[in-house]
Formats: sequence, structure tokens, C-alpha cells
Amino acid sequence: MERNPDELAMRIRQGDKVALSRGLTLVESTRKNDHETALTLLDKLRDQTGNSIRIGITGVPGVGKSTFIESFGQVLVEKGKKIAVLAIDPSSEKSGGSILGDKTRMNKLSQLPEVYIRPTASGGSLGGVAKRTRESILLCEAAGFDVVIIETVGVGQSETMVKEMVDFFLLLMLAGAGDELQGIKRGIMEMADALVITKADGDNEAAAKRARNEYKNAMHLFPPNENGWIPKAMTCSSYTNIGVPEVWETIESFANKMTLSGFLDANRRGQEVYWFKETLKEMLIANFMDAKGMKERILAAEKILFEGKGNAFADAKELMQFYITQLTNAKN
Amino acid sequence: MERNPDELAMRIRQGDKVALSRGLTLVESTRKNDHETALTLLDKLRDQTGNSIRIGITGVPGVGKSTFIESFGQVLVEKGKKIAVLAIDPSSEKSGGSILGDKTRMNKLSQLPEVYIRPTASGGSLGGVAKRTRESILLCEAAGFDVVIIETVGVGQSETMVKEMVDFFLLLMLAGAGDELQGIKRGIMEMADALVITKADGDNEAAAKRARNEYKNAMHLFPPNENGWIPKAMTCSSYTNIGVPEVWETIESFANKMTLSGFLDANRRGQEVYWFKETLKEMLIANFMDAKGMKERILAAEKILFEGKGNAFADAKELMQFYITQLTNAKN
Repeated sequence: MERNPDELAMRIRQGDKVALSRGLTLVESTRKNDHETALTLLDKLRDQTGNSIRIGITGVPGVGKSTFIESFGQVLVEKGKKIAVLAIDPSSEKSGGSILGDKTRMNKLSQLPEVYIRPTASGGSLGGVAKRTRESILLCEAAGFDVVIIETVGVGQSETMVKEMVDFFLLLMLAGAGDELQGIKRGIMEMADALVITKADGDNEAAAKRARNEYKNAMHLFPPNENGWIPKAMTCSSYTNIGVPEVWETIESFANKMTLSGFLDANRRGQEVYWFKETLKEMLIANFMDAKGMKERILAAEKILFEGKGNAFADAKELMQFYITQLTNAKN
Repeated sequence: MERNPDELAMRIRQGDKVALSRGLTLVESTRKNDHETALTLLDKLRDQTGNSIRIGITGVPGVGKSTFIESFGQVLVEKGKKIAVLAIDPSSEKSGGSILGDKTRMNKLSQLPEVYIRPTASGGSLGGVAKRTRESILLCEAAGFDVVIIETVGVGQSETMVKEMVDFFLLLMLAGAGDELQGIKRGIMEMADALVITKADGDNEAAAKRARNEYKNAMHLFPPNENGWIPKAMTCSSYTNIGVPEVWETIESFANKMTLSGFLDANRRGQEVYWFKETLKEMLIANFMDAKGMKERILAAEKILFEGKGNAFADAKELMQFYITQLTNAKN
């Protein structure tokens, strides 16, 4: 397939989905050369990025994320939007067949020309994929998509990362605060800009509305966001479609307000600096861990500390000294 | 004053408050020699540590932290406990007179022989002081205190750090979810093991109870803690003392449950490893930032990124290369 960044950039700019897929594969690749090609590609497309609304959608398995996106996506297409869906799903690592799986799950949506769905084809670590998703968003924007949706499963570390790359963070939940909640990671609720109770239809409708009211009250007990936005609590049914257009209206109203106040832009610029720092930190730690014999030393220190012996500060200092010696000797 | 670690260790073990103060000053010192003496001292006392209940107490200025601790502390002393209070308060950096200030605030408590109060005498950064507080807790334990209270103001980064060094985290709040909440940092509520509405007396009592019920309902909407503990919502008055003994009963019940289930110990061991990793990361970053010309380069990269130009990944890679070259050249 096409590997020439100039050719790829041109085709992506024209909205060519095959070229976009190729670009995303380069972005996600764990091979060094591929990722360098991806960075070159991104540089060429940078002036075409930033024009979408970036939405993170999370919720535990079973909450109905796919059916929600299927319904939500169609609402957007009816409003004339072109949408891209990027999924970060650890389960796909296990099944290995998520590409077909996701497209089947979003059956009608995936067949629309205005829609591009990209499931995770994760060979490496989930964390690694999540970080690259930032670059994937930019490629989708260059390909002309107006809304980019990042889907995660709400059980791991990915959500914190996704929060740092989107404009709006949506948490899907089920009615009933019992067992269904067990899977959600603590801290995710406070990250949400809106909380949507799904499956608000039939016998479940009353319970969903009750849950919505409970969350609505709870949201008011929280410290407000810096941007002045009070997180919304809503209900919807992906089956009857009731409430789904309202979710989009909420996001649109958020985007309009934040664009006007300058918070949307300030948030994105802050995110850029955040990722720069994160990447730097990560590279530094990787270099440290790569020093000969370092991993063994760290494991040994952790073991002693976990047994209640050892001294965190002194142990860290010793390892740091070892690192600098290793690094300077490597050159000589 | 005494600087010999053997002598100091002996006197701290005997519960000598003057020696303890001297030890804490060494722990908090930004001078390298002092901190090394402190580490030697800690090593000598390590077998005497770990026997207290470590409690973090936070809440915005005005919530009544000092009067709560004044009242709470006396309840503990009546139960035969020896208590140490360590305060991390950024305001003391400004006033410069927090030592007298804090002792005056906790007037009765500070005069009891079973009590030791140590306000922040922060010369350096607040973050630096907060990190050292971990070591301060150990010194207080070696001096025989049964309960160690860490007081913070709930508006900065310190709370996350304090959460990682205590067994129980208490959030004080005022009735009314309006303006009073503005100051609390997002994310702190989810860290709390108990939430206490203060000033539940006189005209305010009904409002406090209403608020307690609201928070109680909200707490149930949250994902549960890994240790199975459901955060409590309570009211108290430091003026009438009503509700204050119940706060201690809650903490004692928590400590008993967690000791039995093994979570208290597991949590502490996890905290040790956490601090080892944090310290290592911090040293690594400090070494990186100390490379000649690095600070200027980072500021320049951040400026470009903030303007929407630049490439976070490529910029980070370049700086990393620069660091390694600097480090290896320094030796040659």
C-alpha cells in the first residue's frame, strides 16, 4: 500500500478513506520507521486539523455504547455532519477480530458514506494505542470529518488519556446504582461533561429517569469546572431514539459556549503542552529503564519496600546514581 | 541544637518533643546535609514506626478545620490517645507566623501533654514540604503518638500526595452546595473516606443535616472503593461537640476492618512503592532539567506548542537526544 507521505497527505485531504486507514495504521504502528513516516504525514496535514468537535464516549461493557453511537451517529449525519469513530477497546486484543465485530455492531452507521469507523487493531499495549489516538484524531480532521468520536470502555487507564485529547467527555451509565457500577473506575464520574443514562425505554424508562434525577442532584454537589460548565445528566434510548438528539444539542451548546469564551481553544493548547510533557517523561523513563541491569534492580528494591524494609528515598537515590554511571560509561 | 542522630533517636524514642521538633526540622530542611542526617535518623527509628492511625484532614479555609481538630483531638485524648498534628498550609508561607498562629488556633489542645502540634514552617515549595511529611509521620510514630493527623487546605496539589500517605482521608465541608464549594479542587470528593459537614449547630443544624443526606445519597452513586469501604457522610459541631466522637468511631471502625482484611497493611506497602517510584521519577526529571540550557529549550518548545505550532512528539524526542548528549559530554 501507499507509503509516500506526500501522496498519502494529498489523498487524505481529499477525504479518501483508504488513504486515511493507511495513515492510521502508520500512526498506530510500533515499528519506528512507520511512526516516523506518520509524523512526517502529520506535519504535512497540520494546517488542515483542529476543525472537528472531539468527543470522548465511555461506559462499561453492557451499557450500550455501540448501539448509542449507531443511533447518535445517524442523528449527526442527518444534520449534515461527517463523523469518524475511533474505538479503544481492550477486548479486541483478545478476540483479535474486532474490525469485523465493530462494523457489525454499528451496522447501519458503517454503511453511510459520511461515516468512518476505525476499531482498535491493537498489537501493542493498550496505553500505547490510546496515546497514539491523539495523532489519529488529527488525521481524521485532515480528512474532513466534523465530529471525531473516541470510544473507550471505562475500566482502565485509557479514560484519563482520552479526557486529555477531547473537547467533551460523555459517560454512559445504566439505571440503578448497584452492580452495574462495579466496573467503572473511580474518578471517571468527575471527568464527565455529561452523564447519559441509556436504555431509557419500556419497563426501564421510569428507573432511568429516577437515576437521571439522582445524578443531576449529585452533579450539583461537585465543585464546578474551571470553564463554568455544570455537567448534565440526561436519559436516552438508542432503541426509540428518544433523547439522542438532545445529547447532540448539549454537546453543540457546550462547543458554542466554549468557543466563544475561548476555553475550547485554551483547553486544546493546554492539552498540547500536557502531551509534550507526558511524552518527554515517558522517553526519559524508557531510557532509564533501558540501562543495563536496571529492571532487575528496580524489582529488587520494590520487593524490599513491599516487605516493609528499605527506604524509598535512599533506594531511589542509589538507582539514580547507577543510571548516570551507566549512561556516561556507555559513551566511553 | 542536638544534631547527633544516635542521641536524637534515643530522645525521640523516649517521646521527647524537643528532640522530635529537631528531627522534623532536619526532615523538612532543604539543605542536603540536614536531609541526609534525617535519613540516618529515620533508619535508626524504622522499627518503631507504623503503629499509628494516619489521618488526612482537608477542607477549604473557613470550613473550621482548626476548631474541628481542637475538638476532635480532645475526644482522642480522653480516650487515652497521644496525638500529633502536622499542618501543610500554604497561607503560612505568606504570613510567616504560622507557628504561633496554629498554636493559638488550637488553644486548649496544644496545652495538653498528650498532644504535639507542628505547623508548617515552609521555607521551600509547598510540594516539597508535603512530600517530606511522609517522613515526618514516621518520626511522630517513633515518638509514640497513636494518631497522626495531617491537615491540608483542600485547594492545591497537596491532597493527592497526602492521600498517598494516610490510612483515612477526611473531607470537611460546609452546608450548602453553593459558593462555599468554589474553592475545593475537583477530584478531592472521590478521595474521601468520610465527609463531615461542620458547624451543625444552632440555625445551621437543619441545613447541615440536609446536606449530609444529600451527600449520603450521592456517595452511593459512586463506584465503590477497592477495599469495600463505602464513604460515610456525617455532621458535627465543634462548638457543641455533637457528632465529633462519632467521627472517631467511624475512623476506628474503618481501621479495625481494614486491619482485619489486610487492606490497611497492603495499602501502606503500596504507598511505599508509590513513593519510591515518585521519588525516582522526580530525581530523573530534576537531573534532566539541570542539563545546561535545558530549561530555556523546554520553555521555547512549550511556547511554540501553545501557539498551536510544533509537534509534541518530535519536540520531546529532540530534547531527549539533547539530554543524552549533554550527559555523556559532561563526563568526557
